[in-house]
Amino acid sequence: MKRLMNTPDTLPTDVLDGFAAAHADILVLDPGRRFMRRRTLAPGKAALVSGGGCGHEPMHVGFVGQGMLDAACPGQVFTSPTPGQVTGAAQAVDTGAGCLFIVKNYEGDVMNFAMAREMARGQVEMLLVRDDVAVEDAAGTTGRRGVAGTLIVEKCVGAAAEAGADLRQLLALGGRVVAATRTMGVALTSCTVPAAGRPTFLLGADEMEIGVGIHGEPGRRRAKLGTAQAAAAEMVGAILRDMAPRRGAEILLLVNGLGGTPPQELYLMAGCATALLRDAGLAVSRHLTGTFVTALDMAGCSISITLLDDELRRLWDAPVRTAALRWGV
Amino acid sequence: MKRLMNTPDTLPTDVLDGFAAAHADILVLDPGRRFMRRRTLAPGKAALVSGGGCGHEPMHVGFVGQGMLDAACPGQVFTSPTPGQVTGAAQAVDTGAGCLFIVKNYEGDVMNFAMAREMARGQVEMLLVRDDVAVEDAAGTTGRRGVAGTLIVEKCVGAAAEAGADLRQLLALGGRVVAATRTMGVALTSCTVPAAGRPTFLLGADEMEIGVGIHGEPGRRRAKLGTAQAAAAEMVGAILRDMAPRRGAEILLLVNGLGGTPPQELYLMAGCATALLRDAGLAVSRHLTGTFVTALDMAGCSISITLLDDELRRLWDAPVRTAALRWGV
Repeated sequence: MKRLMNTPDTLPTDVLDGFAAAHADILVLDPGRRFMRRRTLAPGKAALVSGGGCGHEPMHVGFVGQGMLDAACPGQVFTSPTPGQVTGAAQAVDTGAGCLFIVKNYEGDVMNFAMAREMARGQVEMLLVRDDVAVEDAAGTTGRRGVAGTLIVEKCVGAAAEAGADLRQLLALGGRVVAATRTMGVALTSCTVPAAGRPTFLLGADEMEIGVGIHGEPGRRRAKLGTAQAAAAEMVGAILRDMAPRRGAEILLLVNGLGGTPPQELYLMAGCATALLRDAGLAVSRHLTGTFVTALDMAGCSISITLLDDELRRLWDAPVRTAALRWGV
Repeated sequence: MKRLMNTPDTLPTDVLDGFAAAHADILVLDPGRRFMRRRTLAPGKAALVSGGGCGHEPMHVGFVGQGMLDAACPGQVFTSPTPGQVTGAAQAVDTGAGCLFIVKNYEGDVMNFAMAREMARGQVEMLLVRDDVAVEDAAGTTGRRGVAGTLIVEKCVGAAAEAGADLRQLLALGGRVVAATRTMGVALTSCTVPAAGRPTFLLGADEMEIGVGIHGEPGRRRAKLGTAQAAAAEMVGAILRDMAPRRGAEILLLVNGLGGTPPQELYLMAGCATALLRDAGLAVSRHLTGTFVTALDMAGCSISITLLDDELRRLWDAPVRTAALRWGV
């Protein structure tokens, strides 16, 4: 394990301090480091709070800001934030219109956010993201896992909140984005959890894990690592078989790096995926390529697809100003 | 070597196709794939053309767009573009106000861009970027190497060109930004050139290369990899000894990933570097953290510092819309 780190113990707080230093115009770190919140809150706007284990950066701290989240609660590495962190965040950013918790579907996260919801003073709703088509149930998960599609959900729901949607509308919209979104990933290497100091799983020098989770959970199967084209076909094929979009459907394509994969390879994959989707008769009208939802230092990438309509396209295009996504402002 | 790739031969064009597919709203790929240019040219604006070997993505193709470059010419992996590529680009984007070539200081690049300048029909000036404090002369380089500071030069000069500066003014400004900018990097792993298939250099499991170049060139020395704090101190110290800024000086800090390093580690480094600079009595007023100027799959990062004044701060803040940098628009 070679990485730029001080100690495993201080890793989560060191990362938070770095985000707070680099984006002081957007972010404020809670003095107790329980959560990161927007510098400027919009009174009367329904508040969006997300969170999850550290190790997925820039998610979720990098998604806090105008047009996206109001606060994010980072846990220890690959560990849910505590209910106290979440209630602290909700209290800090709820300006009276209530709070929506956006939670990736892992048992630990679901449990702690649900407890926080019970404890919270204001009105709270909870939205589960489950976009990973790789597996239906996994260790520590009932139903599909929440992975890179979370970015798309938080972007669209964030835009709607900014435009004045209320809690009930945001919950319905969020469910609609989740239903329209599918993700599938492949790993070329395992991640290494700093405190463990050794790879979470072992892959042969010529192997990839198809359908890997963002904590290094197993996917569907091991396969020989072939061309980028073949890896893209594996991911796009799995998504389209599950999604069964009509010919001519308009879609958003997110090609997401898992941490250790350079931009060069992600763009190469974006080219392969776009060609495959076009050949499948789909219209890719929106693209995002980059490293957004990571599994520490894992090499590999995921592909996410969202079926767009006029409303979702408009919400995607709306201005956003966060550490990780910024346009229109 | 494990990577998402089709074949080493098709790598440069596959990457270009990916950029063109993912950013069709900003970029147009020359049909002969000699260069990538802006979709919308601004008639009467001095044109900016850069380029260099493939393998540094998103540089330079990801810096093409409003407020930055007009065209970028990518060569083969770590190989200069040909003079014909550069003249083709200049001809495509020069709308009558001439063309500035922004060139990283490597002998191959300097030679080919200089030949292109001789061959070009319109007026052409050439700006050399040499920001790497690690070594004075290196294999294939006379004087300092051009590395991640190139982003800062292209951003500031691009903003001035957009605001109507002429070729002579852009050349002078560019020289001023180069003079105000210093970079130093460390590698935790070597890169692997795809056609070679093995690491360019070998590092022990507990070693880092201090002052590494963006093609895997040697730096100043090998050292034990310690804490992130110690690595940041090594880089910041080397820059400040060379730069000798006055106490209270206002600076821009760029923490740049070399390809294989996750955002988590870059933000952690940004936090360490910010604290060190503050302790040195400097005012970090602008930050950029991310993976912008890479050496294929190399793990590690570089730190760049630019001394700001009112003009450079304003140029940095000006709107930009490219694949890699976007704000204000």
